[in-house]
Amino acid sequence: MLNTRVVLARRPDAVVTEDCFRIERVEVGGVPPGCVLVRSQFLSCDPYLRLEMNARFDLDAPIRARATGHIASSADPYWPVGAAVWGFLDWAEYTIVETAGLHRIDPLDGALRQPLGARGMNGLTAWAGMMELGRPTPGDTIVVSAGAGSVGSIAGQLARLAGARTVAVVGGERKVRHAIERLGYHVAVDHMGHEPLEVALGRACPDGVDIYFDNVGGAVLDAVLPLLNRGARLAMCGVISKYDGQPAPQPDLTRLMGSGVTATWFSVHDYMPMLPTVSARIGQLLDRNDLVYVEDIVDGVENAPAAFLRLFTGETLGKVLVRVH
Amino acid sequence: MLNTRVVLARRPDAVVTEDCFRIERVEVGGVPPGCVLVRSQFLSCDPYLRLEMNARFDLDAPIRARATGHIASSADPYWPVGAAVWGFLDWAEYTIVETAGLHRIDPLDGALRQPLGARGMNGLTAWAGMMELGRPTPGDTIVVSAGAGSVGSIAGQLARLAGARTVAVVGGERKVRHAIERLGYHVAVDHMGHEPLEVALGRACPDGVDIYFDNVGGAVLDAVLPLLNRGARLAMCGVISKYDGQPAPQPDLTRLMGSGVTATWFSVHDYMPMLPTVSARIGQLLDRNDLVYVEDIVDGVENAPAAFLRLFTGETLGKVLVRVH
Repeated sequence: MLNTRVVLARRPDAVVTEDCFRIERVEVGGVPPGCVLVRSQFLSCDPYLRLEMNARFDLDAPIRARATGHIASSADPYWPVGAAVWGFLDWAEYTIVETAGLHRIDPLDGALRQPLGARGMNGLTAWAGMMELGRPTPGDTIVVSAGAGSVGSIAGQLARLAGARTVAVVGGERKVRHAIERLGYHVAVDHMGHEPLEVALGRACPDGVDIYFDNVGGAVLDAVLPLLNRGARLAMCGVISKYDGQPAPQPDLTRLMGSGVTATWFSVHDYMPMLPTVSARIGQLLDRNDLVYVEDIVDGVENAPAAFLRLFTGETLGKVLVRVH
Repeated sequence: MLNTRVVLARRPDAVVTEDCFRIERVEVGGVPPGCVLVRSQFLSCDPYLRLEMNARFDLDAPIRARATGHIASSADPYWPVGAAVWGFLDWAEYTIVETAGLHRIDPLDGALRQPLGARGMNGLTAWAGMMELGRPTPGDTIVVSAGAGSVGSIAGQLARLAGARTVAVVGGERKVRHAIERLGYHVAVDHMGHEPLEVALGRACPDGVDIYFDNVGGAVLDAVLPLLNRGARLAMCGVISKYDGQPAPQPDLTRLMGSGVTATWFSVHDYMPMLPTVSARIGQLLDRNDLVYVEDIVDGVENAPAAFLRLFTGETLGKVLVRVH
């Protein structure tokens, strides 16, 4: 059986380009004991993969990312054929993996893309940063950068449900409308607009900023720093601005000296024990339509590189997924 | 009556020099209602005054800093002549001040220099950063920069009393001996030694660093970052390295992304309600000789500029005070 897969053709220089990837068709091998063959259904496209391309992924080997699928062939008696699973799979139609790294998906938990999004690591990341570290209370002003993204969109909505005034920083007028009309932010600020970001953000936050959920670093973080209230919390989640292209100078956080501000560079992995609870609570919010989760689904594994590149051009809206089967 | 005082003669360029100050002898004026004339006893020399010289202090006006003294003349019936007080006084023999900014000193609280040191803001600063933010537990490794200084020496000892392994970063062999022999640190690392700081610090912290109490920023912070354990706490107190001389490049804290590390740029002013309690607890520790507090006392208000300059050359040991009367 032939398997279409996406391999790392070369490491990116600065900006990631399509020629960093190569599409291959290779024969699927036998399944060794303790392993299964998974037929992929959805692949997750996340900005952090850009960093893995610099060093962690091997050249000429498939890109590996969170994905869901069904077991097509099994050499582990505890993992039957047909079971739905999620784990780190190749950007491929089929992946042979050790079952030790797989997770079962409860068939009652809805669509097979949910463990990759709001009910999975994206939701847990948003929850950890906003609810565990930010801890919004009614009347707080919260700012989320990449506020319409797969993590930011959940973080902003959780804060609004907790009674906070929510401000998204997004790129482009389409996302401004989306952030307000679909995601329910009180204000959305366009970092690509004609106005300097610090001016627009200052007007959007007349009472200062109590919580900043940072996905991008760089210029957005810089614009938020002067607005932070005494005792503000920074949930430092990612620095998309640094993943791709020339490294931008980072804001000088010593400007915060004496401010009473706390920053935590958190890792979602430290919150894994909370995943079942958080997944269930976010599932409830989704079911009641209190939470909106927008997915941007691309068909065909061979289109994964193009979908991934769009994360860095700002064209995507919400969670980017590749439907393989 | 003539009053000797120290005024700001010019703003410092980069490194503060003695010609930024001028000694004057001026006539003491009358005491307006609601004010008192305080006869200074001790003046506090603290690094933060360097920043105030850039902008906050007026040219040709006296330097103002924390000080203690006795009321020599009063135009406020609630503040009798003879009462011991602390507050912000001129670097002068006498200061006329509004009583609203003064604090009474309990005569049972020991020497009139204690409210300026371990039992005052230096002690509260150490307590806030180490005990409230750092929260040392037995087995933790803690690092304190400027570990033999007026704040750092208390922070390090509090952590040792809480069961932590304590590491001081200090400048020069004399301070290394002092940190170990008098202040009881387990290890002291010399940032002026022949060895690169990150090497010496790495050897001093074989189990990594759980708490870093930062008084200096710059190169010391840079050397600590790679040693931080998951979940480590940074109590960001000051950046002495930036106060004087050319601004050094600050470490890029985005290196902490995903580390689970939390940093708080705290201000002692947010902890003022705790001052009575903390002062009493530190007083107990001093009385029992569980805590050592070393003072470096210079006589004569005209010697205050020279004493202050020594804070930045690393010659001082512990708390620098000027005895005026």
